[in-house]
Amino acid sequence: MIIQPILDLVAICAKKGIDHAILSPGSRCAPLTLAFARHPNIHSRTIPDERSAAFIALGMAQQQSQPVVLVCTSGSAALNYFPAIAEAYFQQVPLLILTADRPPEWIDQWDGQTIYQEEVFGKHVKKSFRFPDNFSNQDQIWHAGRIVNEAINLSQQFPAGPVHINIPLREPFYPVEGEKFDFPEYPREFTPITSQSQLTEESLRNIKDRLSKVSRVMIVPGQQKPNNQIQSLLDQLVKNRKAVIVTDVITNLQGENTINLHDHWLGNENLHPDLTPDLVISFGKSVISKSLKQFLRKSNTSHWHIQPDGQSRDTFHHLTRILACSPTGFLNWLYENLPDQDEDFFTRWMRLEKNVQNALPSAFSSVEFGEYPALHFLLKKIPPFSKIHLANSMAVRYVNFLGKRNQEIICNRGTSGIDGSNSTAVGCTFTTKEPVTLITGDMAFFYDRNAFWHNYGMPNLRIIVLNNHSGGIFRLIDGPAKQPELEEFFETRQKLTAKPLSEEYGFQYTFVKNQEELELAMLKFYEPSLQPKILEIESSSPKNAEILKLVKSKIASALAESI
Amino acid sequence: MIIQPILDLVAICAKKGIDHAILSPGSRCAPLTLAFARHPNIHSRTIPDERSAAFIALGMAQQQSQPVVLVCTSGSAALNYFPAIAEAYFQQVPLLILTADRPPEWIDQWDGQTIYQEEVFGKHVKKSFRFPDNFSNQDQIWHAGRIVNEAINLSQQFPAGPVHINIPLREPFYPVEGEKFDFPEYPREFTPITSQSQLTEESLRNIKDRLSKVSRVMIVPGQQKPNNQIQSLLDQLVKNRKAVIVTDVITNLQGENTINLHDHWLGNENLHPDLTPDLVISFGKSVISKSLKQFLRKSNTSHWHIQPDGQSRDTFHHLTRILACSPTGFLNWLYENLPDQDEDFFTRWMRLEKNVQNALPSAFSSVEFGEYPALHFLLKKIPPFSKIHLANSMAVRYVNFLGKRNQEIICNRGTSGIDGSNSTAVGCTFTTKEPVTLITGDMAFFYDRNAFWHNYGMPNLRIIVLNNHSGGIFRLIDGPAKQPELEEFFETRQKLTAKPLSEEYGFQYTFVKNQEELELAMLKFYEPSLQPKILEIESSSPKNAEILKLVKSKIASALAESI
Repeated sequence: MIIQPILDLVAICAKKGIDHAILSPGSRCAPLTLAFARHPNIHSRTIPDERSAAFIALGMAQQQSQPVVLVCTSGSAALNYFPAIAEAYFQQVPLLILTADRPPEWIDQWDGQTIYQEEVFGKHVKKSFRFPDNFSNQDQIWHAGRIVNEAINLSQQFPAGPVHINIPLREPFYPVEGEKFDFPEYPREFTPITSQSQLTEESLRNIKDRLSKVSRVMIVPGQQKPNNQIQSLLDQLVKNRKAVIVTDVITNLQGENTINLHDHWLGNENLHPDLTPDLVISFGKSVISKSLKQFLRKSNTSHWHIQPDGQSRDTFHHLTRILACSPTGFLNWLYENLPDQDEDFFTRWMRLEKNVQNALPSAFSSVEFGEYPALHFLLKKIPPFSKIHLANSMAVRYVNFLGKRNQEIICNRGTSGIDGSNSTAVGCTFTTKEPVTLITGDMAFFYDRNAFWHNYGMPNLRIIVLNNHSGGIFRLIDGPAKQPELEEFFETRQKLTAKPLSEEYGFQYTFVKNQEELELAMLKFYEPSLQPKILEIESSSPKNAEILKLVKSKIASALAESI
Repeated sequence: MIIQPILDLVAICAKKGIDHAILSPGSRCAPLTLAFARHPNIHSRTIPDERSAAFIALGMAQQQSQPVVLVCTSGSAALNYFPAIAEAYFQQVPLLILTADRPPEWIDQWDGQTIYQEEVFGKHVKKSFRFPDNFSNQDQIWHAGRIVNEAINLSQQFPAGPVHINIPLREPFYPVEGEKFDFPEYPREFTPITSQSQLTEESLRNIKDRLSKVSRVMIVPGQQKPNNQIQSLLDQLVKNRKAVIVTDVITNLQGENTINLHDHWLGNENLHPDLTPDLVISFGKSVISKSLKQFLRKSNTSHWHIQPDGQSRDTFHHLTRILACSPTGFLNWLYENLPDQDEDFFTRWMRLEKNVQNALPSAFSSVEFGEYPALHFLLKKIPPFSKIHLANSMAVRYVNFLGKRNQEIICNRGTSGIDGSNSTAVGCTFTTKEPVTLITGDMAFFYDRNAFWHNYGMPNLRIIVLNNHSGGIFRLIDGPAKQPELEEFFETRQKLTAKPLSEEYGFQYTFVKNQEELELAMLKFYEPSLQPKILEIESSSPKNAEILKLVKSKIASALAESI
């Protein structure tokens, strides 16, 4: 039987610009599945493992201005969505999660595939709605349409995020013969016309007054998508005001004369006297660099955060103001109103940056082969239009150590898990014809191998697996490296290589274990192909730890010499 | 730095009989990891994918009288536990879930691997505790020890289930040189001395009075572990009182002259006039047979459920009494007090059972090869001491259609998901030297392939993969089979075979696609080996649908002839 409010739901989605849905198979969700699959303006795909399905939807939504729809059946299916939902929540990515459910009378009656789905994602969705389970009254139809509008609007309003609608469905789930799907051309729709928050004249006078006493301002963007407008404002603030701008690779804002290599010196106090700013201004989401966070926490510097809703996190322990406006607007105003900053201070930071930039190539010149030098080499070979996906935990750190990138960088830093990086990259391939490069460690790669278990083409996917047969990060941090349990309980040594997986899915596969092989492999890696390509770089975890230490000490020496 | 209350926690676990822990790698959880790994009486293993880790713990706990401990790091790790936790909750299996967390001051500050972990499993754990994050006050140490005792006790009390302790931990996580792990020999411990609920004399008089008017009692056990005492009581109730006992394969109570093949006739009303009981007595958990549930819902039969805590589900729509006592005690009393039942009624049920039993072999004798006849053949070849794990969704149904089994049957019918059946079977192999046989479809098998991604031996694992390259169940039910979206959006056709996986992990692998190959393969399948063995049975989904229909009609004809 066709449930018209389900068709209306799908029509509202389409009307509001949603054009992608990721479905997972199930019978309870069949009315949703059929309606999404049959809507002419929505592209639906099926992914069997719900954990991957949700990360794939996340990877698509990261690239789009609309939410991506997720549809699953009742029971534990929804729970497999949860890791990606938490990631979307903290990364502020819009998702519309539709979980089919048994109707209320059947909950907790020992029927199959029945859990407590209402509010099951707790604080990790912006809101959870309950779709009506009956439409005998006109108000219930109004309610259903309203919920769908509210949910989609909410998922897109700042901060964007996942919104859940739990949808109880009674049998029969399938249309009877002759029943036609009739999507309304003009479904009920309401959409907010967004406004911009602007600081009052009085606030701006106060801020200007405060800024007049500042001569060492530091701007710290957090994770965000590429933004040309902000980029050019930052460029001007550097060039004409000598603001120090410190950027991680996930900010996608590493313009000229920004500081990107700070992790090489911020831990070592001998190398940087007098680097403390007198005001930190931040915007965007999280920051990777632990050394930057620790440096700013130790300093006593006031911190302003720009965020449209006036919410913030006290990341550096010294938050004093939250500027409830858009970063673009405020940076524009800041450029007009910030006095010229202390040029010596700016130069001290830039000198360190340049010195590391100069020291890096030779720091790698005589080291053995391993994942760090391999990345140092291969990052330069990635085409400028490739999107680069970085897995947690070492891939993103290594790339961040290696400084500025011109490509768009994507990394799941909302929860910083290793659990969905393949799937997120796969989702990205569904939204672009440009190459999508995923750089991942072996643990993250095999954890999420079901990302590839579906029937959709990903010819533009390029995966670089740094296989050291373990969670190598544990050998790189002091504590676990010294424990006898290192290999079994921390590194979790594992023997797999990506070769069988590549064969299984018909991916092109290249294995390298030295520089010559790597160079040869990179020559053809970005040539077009019908299938994804995997480049596996095998290295030894103990050797990687030595190399990291060696490069670090070489750079420290270079910096010490240059003081 | 060693956190003594964490050592105390582990010592209390050991003291209370917990001897297995499943850890997943992480740094935030290092104090827990080291303490469990170093405790002399607890066997710890590491599993990198937390989704599998939790199902492995479930598979172990199903076999034991104590809870199994789970330890993971902060962030999305805990969310990957969730499918197994929901399964454990509804299947009433004890788990002690220890999730490391950032201390409260760091929640929601954009630090890595930080979500909202408190109460994150919602209603799907029996209780969620918050471990103290500071031990400067003696009361906090008392609180910590108390929580651990309460949590373990609660996980075991009826109904058993998962209990969660969220454990905020501050750096440093690792012992400094020279620090020694000192597990207390007599940690604080309190344990409930359990009592037995007995119905009052007055209640029993009322019940006896009611029973005196009953002549067609039907006993319906739900899912439970094998129980010799209940088994022999049921045998006596059948033999000497002529009670009709209807059992699914997951009851592990399929004694002599119980009804097991009811799915072959309960849908077809012409075949069974006058089978309605006048009282249904049930105990245990869920029932698989949809036809039994529908039959009893349609009938107007009163239903009593026996459950020690006086809780119940109204599975058949006609629940009238909940007997708050143990099934063993009540069945014992019932045997003494139940008048002899209507022998004709009993005989009508038994005749149908015997007729199907007799019809089954010939029903398969001339059908083509497919998963149903393959199972009919191979089930007889499974050694009596093997545990049999059945995956949802078709594996368990097929086996249930095929009647009584002598082996212990395990199936995740708490939520009836396909998401963790490999891992649950793997967990089982960690608890026994007898063979563990997993029968699974291809969708469930590949969904949970990370079950095998670890370094522990499973020489007794035998996996039978029924590979029809899709979720074949959707072709077997009417609704989806008629939709043009069947193959892409319901069956989700997939091309994998288990061969690359077997090679990847060094498992012994046999592929069969006809009866001769199957017979040959079964000759050696249970011979001892150092590695798990996979037997892959390939069949065609459309052909399987035909076979099921054909067998059904052959049996219906046989039954019709015998009326």
